[in-house]
Amino acid sequence: MVGYTKAKEDHLRRLRRVEGQVRGLQRMVEQDKYCIDVLTQVSAANRALQSFALELLEQHMTHCVAEAAAKGGAEADAKVQEAAAAIARLVRS
Amino acid sequence: MVGYTKAKEDHLRRLRRVEGQVRGLQRMVEQDKYCIDVLTQVSAANRALQSFALELLEQHMTHCVAEAAAKGGAEADAKVQEAAAAIARLVRS
Amino acid sequence: MVGYTKAKEDHLRRLRRVEGQVRGLQRMVEQDKYCIDVLTQVSAANRALQSFALELLEQHMTHCVAEAAAKGGAEADAKVQEAAAAIARLVRS
Amino acid sequence: MVGYTKAKEDHLRRLRRVEGQVRGLQRMVEQDKYCIDVLTQVSAANRALQSFALELLEQHMTHCVAEAAAKGGAEADAKVQEAAAAIARLVRS
Repeated sequence: MVGYTKAKEDHLRRLRRVEGQVRGLQRMVEQDKYCIDVLTQVSAANRALQSFALELLEQHMTHCVAEAAAKGGAEADAKVQEAAAAIARLVRS
Repeated sequence: MVGYTKAKEDHLRRLRRVEGQVRGLQRMVEQDKYCIDVLTQVSAANRALQSFALELLEQHMTHCVAEAAAKGGAEADAKVQEAAAAIARLVRS
Repeated sequence: MVGYTKAKEDHLRRLRRVEGQVRGLQRMVEQDKYCIDVLTQVSAANRALQSFALELLEQHMTHCVAEAAAKGGAEADAKVQEAAAAIARLVRS
Repeated sequence: MVGYTKAKEDHLRRLRRVEGQVRGLQRMVEQDKYCIDVLTQVSAANRALQSFALELLEQHMTHCVAEAAAKGGAEADAKVQEAAAAIARLVRS
């Protein structure tokens, strides 16, 4: 499916960027860069990971959760609870 | 509905507890309590507010979002996006 | 001390505002306001509590931690570790 | 200095582990793993980055901030404010 492939490419692009940020952090530590600058870069990587997670979550809710809800029953409730638990982990991490 | 009333009572009980924690913080400041102890209490109030938010969100997804999803169409998508935006605000706050 | 009194007044003003937000949340729940609007208000209260905590922490570091550091020794290390633990609780809450 | 070298090695080890987690996330996306499992792994990477940041921050406060505080004056205040701003970015990210 075109839509899924596009989303997947976008996810991989975001994650490669995060990987680049984490490798950049390693170089900063190796070169004894100033702690505060390293911390600023950690905050940026954290925000990038969060943005990825929030996008993935929205797509999951639009597709999996909504489909299960359309069918109704125990499966629907289970999907919502599963998503709610993942959201709680994100909010608390 | 019995279910709703019970959830509502539970929400109010949680929020009254948070109010008590915030008033406790005021007393701590008035009595010049040690900063670190005040900060510990702030973390506790933040966690209590978050737990309330996560519970409310799960109930919203179980009822409103799932009902809209069962009907499908633009309304379903709008509900999911609205919930996703609220989740993003929680994760970033 | 004038400086401390001004900071204390500012802290109490902030906390009273948070208390007002939490009471506002109770009214919203009592009046069955829309979940998403309640969640938006929770995020606002969380941010207000965080801002208060960050201000308190900065003042604590400027006064207590810096004074202990100026004296040096085990007391200085203990103050820094205590502050670091409080920061970790804030970051994770 | 032995102490610094050990801390640096520990930092690099942590960051390499985070890099491994982010590459693991890429594989999960490529293999179309279930969204919820991907989100769980994002939360783990976020927590690992945060732990790294908190450790770095504590060491920065123990060394740079405490040394500046011991000297006192404008430099000491500047270091504390700089650290406080970095903490605020972490708390809000």
